[in-house]
Amino acid sequence: MQFPFIEQMKLGSRLEAAVPKDKIGDVKVMNNEYDNEKFFEEYAKMSRSKEGLKAAGEWHQLKPLFPSLEGKSVLDLGCGYGWHCKFAEEQGATKILGIDLSKKMIEEAQKRNSGNQIEYRISGLEEYDYPENEWDCVISNLALHYIEDIVEIFQKVYRTLKPGGIFLFNIEHPVFTAGVGQDWIYTDDGKPQYWAIDNYFITGERNTHFLGCDVVKQHHTLTQIIMGLLNNGFELKVVEEAEPPKEMMDIPGMEDELRRPMMLLVKAIAKK
Amino acid sequence: MQFPFIEQMKLGSRLEAAVPKDKIGDVKVMNNEYDNEKFFEEYAKMSRSKEGLKAAGEWHQLKPLFPSLEGKSVLDLGCGYGWHCKFAEEQGATKILGIDLSKKMIEEAQKRNSGNQIEYRISGLEEYDYPENEWDCVISNLALHYIEDIVEIFQKVYRTLKPGGIFLFNIEHPVFTAGVGQDWIYTDDGKPQYWAIDNYFITGERNTHFLGCDVVKQHHTLTQIIMGLLNNGFELKVVEEAEPPKEMMDIPGMEDELRRPMMLLVKAIAKK
Repeated sequence: MQFPFIEQMKLGSRLEAAVPKDKIGDVKVMNNEYDNEKFFEEYAKMSRSKEGLKAAGEWHQLKPLFPSLEGKSVLDLGCGYGWHCKFAEEQGATKILGIDLSKKMIEEAQKRNSGNQIEYRISGLEEYDYPENEWDCVISNLALHYIEDIVEIFQKVYRTLKPGGIFLFNIEHPVFTAGVGQDWIYTDDGKPQYWAIDNYFITGERNTHFLGCDVVKQHHTLTQIIMGLLNNGFELKVVEEAEPPKEMMDIPGMEDELRRPMMLLVKAIAKK
Repeated sequence: MQFPFIEQMKLGSRLEAAVPKDKIGDVKVMNNEYDNEKFFEEYAKMSRSKEGLKAAGEWHQLKPLFPSLEGKSVLDLGCGYGWHCKFAEEQGATKILGIDLSKKMIEEAQKRNSGNQIEYRISGLEEYDYPENEWDCVISNLALHYIEDIVEIFQKVYRTLKPGGIFLFNIEHPVFTAGVGQDWIYTDDGKPQYWAIDNYFITGERNTHFLGCDVVKQHHTLTQIIMGLLNNGFELKVVEEAEPPKEMMDIPGMEDELRRPMMLLVKAIAKK
């Protein structure tokens, strides 16, 4: 499997890109403790695993979409190693909560990206209580494609945002999650021939492999994502497909990332 | 090629789905007069070619997206046989202009769907003058994927819409226009194996075959379509991928239409 774009994402330590067992809970994602350990070991081995956001392929597009965070409150859904929470603190946010279902992930976040304004909490996205009108900004990076009922999350995010609050997220693109095996079709000599999709309108579970682990993701159509927002009080500000930045184009295989979209960045405002 | 969904579209006589030579003008779409004649002949042969909108696979989704047209003015970009202009008149619109680059198409529209409130005019989408604040509603059905610079059209549509005016269009889905040969990959025994896409971020010309003709379409990314609207004064109201209606699911091959999205319906409002 050749995904240099997502390899870069991994380098950004977005562990949530492959969900470990302890992130699962009731959400039935993975069920192999060994794979889990293996997964973390694979991660630990990566030489650039501590580079953070600047090593993430989509960061050059996601970063400019953040609103001003000076004096603001920020909730991060699926915070992983906490890079985005740290970024929010650096931008002047005064109250930051990162939640993640994974105990290991939260431990890593506390080690790597602690801060006076930041709280990390072990919690699934479905379990958090989303208090009304609590947050100025809710962010989520590469976590929502593990959520079966994203519309319910959208409704809860709307509730917990203050009037005019911003919801900024990055989700695996429907073209990617509807991919056959979520992998390229290869030529006989092992080159990516094209990206095949199938069963696009049949939403829900997709069984995939990532870093040697079995990972279950949820495929949502573009309609579900966009209308899930528009029908629940949001106004769309930005819908962008991530393209790798020029400075990463010399990475082997990166040109293939121009052949199909992998990530969808969305910025929406809560109209109240 | 098995596209029962678009076959239904043809039955709705959306001739613009394959652009004849005289629709081309400066827009360089096709250049074979014989293919043109052949294309029209193929059309003339179709037994359901006069059924209109109800035979169009996406109509069940597009129809509810129309705003109230009572006493309103409507511009149809790429009107084809004029079915949508006729619908607008039936809905009470009092001033309707359908433009199409094709002289033959306009002749057909005048024959099939003339009306006291309707004017048909031979004009490419790029050539129309888009007078400021002129129209309550601008519609376009399966024409914009022949336009190289859709953002320019979006800007002109914004200009010509009255404040709060509606832009409602249906365009071939980026997954469809980025399709390899814009066709299925087939198994050895001729069944659609999957839908392959490639060169997604390389926008522009795609050479395709349709009804025995060479047709050049323009591939736009989702980003181009959505941001082209959001960056030019529009607010998004609806973004929906068309699914064939249940009552068409017994048509042979129609179930395959659930395997990849073919059309994108968009409703936007001009904020002025």
